[in-house]
Amino acid sequence: MYDLIIIGSGPAGLSAAVYGRRAGLDLLVIEEKPMSGGQVLNTYEVDNYLGMPGINGFDMGMKFREHADQMGTEYKTASVIAIQEKGKVKSVEIADGTCYEAKAIVLAMGAQHTMLGVPGEKEYKGRGVSYCATCDGAFFKGSDVAVVGGGDVAVEDAIYLSRMCRKVWLIHRRDSLRAAKSLQDKLKECGNVEILWNRTLESIYGTELVEGVKLHHVQEKDDIDLAVEGVFIAVGMRPNTEYIRDQIPCDGQGYVIAGEDCATKVQGVYAAGDIRTKQVRQIATAVADGACAIASVERYLMTG
Amino acid sequence: MYDLIIIGSGPAGLSAAVYGRRAGLDLLVIEEKPMSGGQVLNTYEVDNYLGMPGINGFDMGMKFREHADQMGTEYKTASVIAIQEKGKVKSVEIADGTCYEAKAIVLAMGAQHTMLGVPGEKEYKGRGVSYCATCDGAFFKGSDVAVVGGGDVAVEDAIYLSRMCRKVWLIHRRDSLRAAKSLQDKLKECGNVEILWNRTLESIYGTELVEGVKLHHVQEKDDIDLAVEGVFIAVGMRPNTEYIRDQIPCDGQGYVIAGEDCATKVQGVYAAGDIRTKQVRQIATAVADGACAIASVERYLMTG
Repeated sequence: MYDLIIIGSGPAGLSAAVYGRRAGLDLLVIEEKPMSGGQVLNTYEVDNYLGMPGINGFDMGMKFREHADQMGTEYKTASVIAIQEKGKVKSVEIADGTCYEAKAIVLAMGAQHTMLGVPGEKEYKGRGVSYCATCDGAFFKGSDVAVVGGGDVAVEDAIYLSRMCRKVWLIHRRDSLRAAKSLQDKLKECGNVEILWNRTLESIYGTELVEGVKLHHVQEKDDIDLAVEGVFIAVGMRPNTEYIRDQIPCDGQGYVIAGEDCATKVQGVYAAGDIRTKQVRQIATAVADGACAIASVERYLMTG
Repeated sequence: MYDLIIIGSGPAGLSAAVYGRRAGLDLLVIEEKPMSGGQVLNTYEVDNYLGMPGINGFDMGMKFREHADQMGTEYKTASVIAIQEKGKVKSVEIADGTCYEAKAIVLAMGAQHTMLGVPGEKEYKGRGVSYCATCDGAFFKGSDVAVVGGGDVAVEDAIYLSRMCRKVWLIHRRDSLRAAKSLQDKLKECGNVEILWNRTLESIYGTELVEGVKLHHVQEKDDIDLAVEGVFIAVGMRPNTEYIRDQIPCDGQGYVIAGEDCATKVQGVYAAGDIRTKQVRQIATAVADGACAIASVERYLMTG
């Protein structure tokens, strides 16, 4: 029986491994893919994790993994299909039926940005297509960009980008925004943001980098081309919590309900990183969660 | 008038600067000393900030500063003596009487570990003397160490260290511990922890590194020598909030009351890093606060 099983090897899981190993815990990291780093791996450039300016996402993933390796972390590559909580003993079942037992679990499976599923989206990810204005906006200084969506995040992204981009097009498939009124008011004050109503994004094209998007009008059935260098897609996120929702209380969107201490509603089970209910989903906050989750695990093992 | 003034240039302040600059904010960092990094600067080795294993504290401070520099951060070296909140305009006064104005403020002045003030303490800081078991415990694998204190943190530190050290002496000046009963129970289960009651630490000595401590019995007036390689001092922390306590609500210990979103009770004023009420005071959590504080500043500037 392990002291701790960490599910997921993105920034939150690996940070938890570093803190856990340094605390002398006997732990196992179960990762879905044979490569650690999570979403970071597929990021072209990361420029906002303090101390590592302008680093390639792949290199960052490798550095994170090496750090956890140096602490003597044990890994298992497998798909987790279920977790079970039998009081003081928790068990984690992987696809081949094997069960691993531990005194505590840190859930660090992350979340995924919802994709539009249009031609060009996958191909140009990291080469003009982004799902995070906070992360990537600064790379588009002086450029023309499009934001897709109509909720709070889309409007916040448009306002955020308006400060550094030349022109921001907000593309929304309906004729009104879902975003909060206060945000909509602020959006109107941005001189360089224009809303294109009732339009869906049909495709993203370019050569090496994004050069434009094709938009479809949902009523008038006309297609137009918009020359942009960046496309920010803000149509939601989906946490990777399918197989735990029956046991661990989640919110309406599927995020594990847990505060800054990463404690879920189930004793001995913690949630770190993008998977939990939080405002800011960034590498830095995921890494912090790794530290906080282990502090909570420590306290649980000490007194539980 | 700046969009934002950040007071303090430790990990929280510099991370806020990186996020703020990337968000296109016109900001000023006011730092007390002409060198950034905060407490990190005086740390011999940092081994728990994901991606930078085994880095010297000074080098880490330089890397953090370089990152903020690359984003075009503006700095002012000065002692802040007061902040004023006049609705939408905040002002920050420095020692020479100059006032700087901004729409928002991030307080990132950090906290200090209370020192015992005994001979050898300063000299051996980072060479055997530590104020953070989570940070430095792993460097003392297989060693004999002493923990000084009697509260929750001291007992937690002793339990934590018992897993990696050969022997842990808990030195307390009274005949009972203040720590929670559950922690005391757990402490008793640790076979390699011994409590030395009614003893004060008089001095720390060694050559290159710590070799021992001199202890005084408060009743029997006898002094003994204890051979240890590490001394963990857990007698409290003091947040650097003296000049703001009248304006910004703080808790009984002087920490600024603010949650994960770093929002204080005063609109437009945020607290990031060790200065705010939180469980885990680590570099990683300070860096995360920098990101969270800017997200809150952004939202405030958008809708406020």
